Amino acid sequence: MQSWQPKAIELDGKPFGSGKFPAICAPLVGRTREKLLAEVAVVAAKKPDIIEWRVDFFEGIADTAQVVDIAGYIRRAAGNAAVLFTRRSMREGGERIELTEPQVMALYRTVCESGHVDLVDFEMSSEPDHLAQVRQFSKARGVKLVLSFHDFKATPSPDVLAARFAQAASLGADVAKIAVMPRDMDDVLTLLSATLRASRELAIPVVSMSMGPLGAITRLCGWTFGSAMTFGVGESSSAPGQMPIEDLAAGLAIARRALG
Amino acid sequence: MQSWQPKAIELDGKPFGSGKFPAICAPLVGRTREKLLAEVAVVAAKKPDIIEWRVDFFEGIADTAQVVDIAGYIRRAAGNAAVLFTRRSMREGGERIELTEPQVMALYRTVCESGHVDLVDFEMSSEPDHLAQVRQFSKARGVKLVLSFHDFKATPSPDVLAARFAQAASLGADVAKIAVMPRDMDDVLTLLSATLRASRELAIPVVSMSMGPLGAITRLCGWTFGSAMTFGVGESSSAPGQMPIEDLAAGLAIARRALG
Repeated sequence: MQSWQPKAIELDGKPFGSGKFPAICAPLVGRTREKLLAEVAVVAAKKPDIIEWRVDFFEGIADTAQVVDIAGYIRRAAGNAAVLFTRRSMREGGERIELTEPQVMALYRTVCESGHVDLVDFEMSSEPDHLAQVRQFSKARGVKLVLSFHDFKATPSPDVLAARFAQAASLGADVAKIAVMPRDMDDVLTLLSATLRASRELAIPVVSMSMGPLGAITRLCGWTFGSAMTFGVGESSSAPGQMPIEDLAAGLAIARRALG
Repeated sequence: MQSWQPKAIELDGKPFGSGKFPAICAPLVGRTREKLLAEVAVVAAKKPDIIEWRVDFFEGIADTAQVVDIAGYIRRAAGNAAVLFTRRSMREGGERIELTEPQVMALYRTVCESGHVDLVDFEMSSEPDHLAQVRQFSKARGVKLVLSFHDFKATPSPDVLAARFAQAASLGADVAKIAVMPRDMDDVLTLLSATLRASRELAIPVVSMSMGPLGAITRLCGWTFGSAMTFGVGESSSAPGQMPIEDLAAGLAIARRALG
């Protein structure tokens, strides 16, 4: 029998959410302050382990003071859930936003310094010096760094997936995340196999998903191959293939019982 | 996107069970007539798509008239569920029973002729002339033949799994079934990959499972890789890793919704 144990996302020994493996993450995608405040109330009531603010959906993203203010509100509303702050670029599936790269950097820095977030997600395809800066000021404030890679059109080869996972670790990530689109069920197996390999070989937790309907099964079973977090819909979806958090929690509970 | 569609188990156009993919099969493992009659009532009330009588658990297996009588009782109690009749040898995970091979052949023939069962499961490692005979007299009575392979110690290589699936088809099976034990999660991926391949390449439905706690996830997700049937516990388990039928049905319903 295997001795391998998948690595969970940990926040310096602080308990967060249910503490169960995998962590369930629910996104916030409100476009206005008003919608976000309403959305976080609905989502937090569903008790995800992590609440992700996808700030690229927010119309006021350029108003840093307002972003920090809302982040504080989300932090208080989140209760025992961890808060993950994510600005996704259009290139990797994000919303159309007007920020320049220096503005993005300034936003991440200010949000990390606010103390309102536990984790930030940054794309590993970003400029190397930007990556290094985000790693530096997130670490300075005890904020965990998720380095992520997305492909909304295809699933790269096993070697490319392995390289992406390893790259995240070598760039100093606390969590390595890969989300890719399958064209057939072989692609789903490729993603699961790469996840299993990375979760054994890397010292950090890994997160992965195969997107869309074909890959939706990975949101329920990916954890058994090492993926430490799975996304479910609290109020609105942020990527194709996410299922309602109630279904996700019930399905995971069933699978956990079966696996003993 | 893929055009491949997994093949369901069909009974000559007769609807059986829920008609959903995959079929849920619940075993009967009672040792006495009395226990079997009580067990089938409990199990049938849980509405599996297929009820499998694992006759190797039955103390009276050598009394063919009694076996046929009980099969008739099970047929009536099963309602809309299909009835699968299985004698598993000790070599492939069955109970200790006293039958000689000729007795086993006579039992299968009489049960097929009784009209009480819809499918029979026979091991593909059996003598070739026995396989041919079972194929002949099951076909003569319109009984579907499941040819099965089991390994309770390990998961064979992808090539061996592919050969076993293909062998079942070439021997005239209506359904090809493989159940193997994983030693790690790579073995689970090997089983799922072989299932996907066979479900595309063969003209008949395939059924597979990775057993024990490590493989339990395949009972919930194997259908997305082509496995047409999954076993859940009605009253008692017949193999390691089976989960309660209520959990299995709920988990499958969640996954089906997510996959759209």
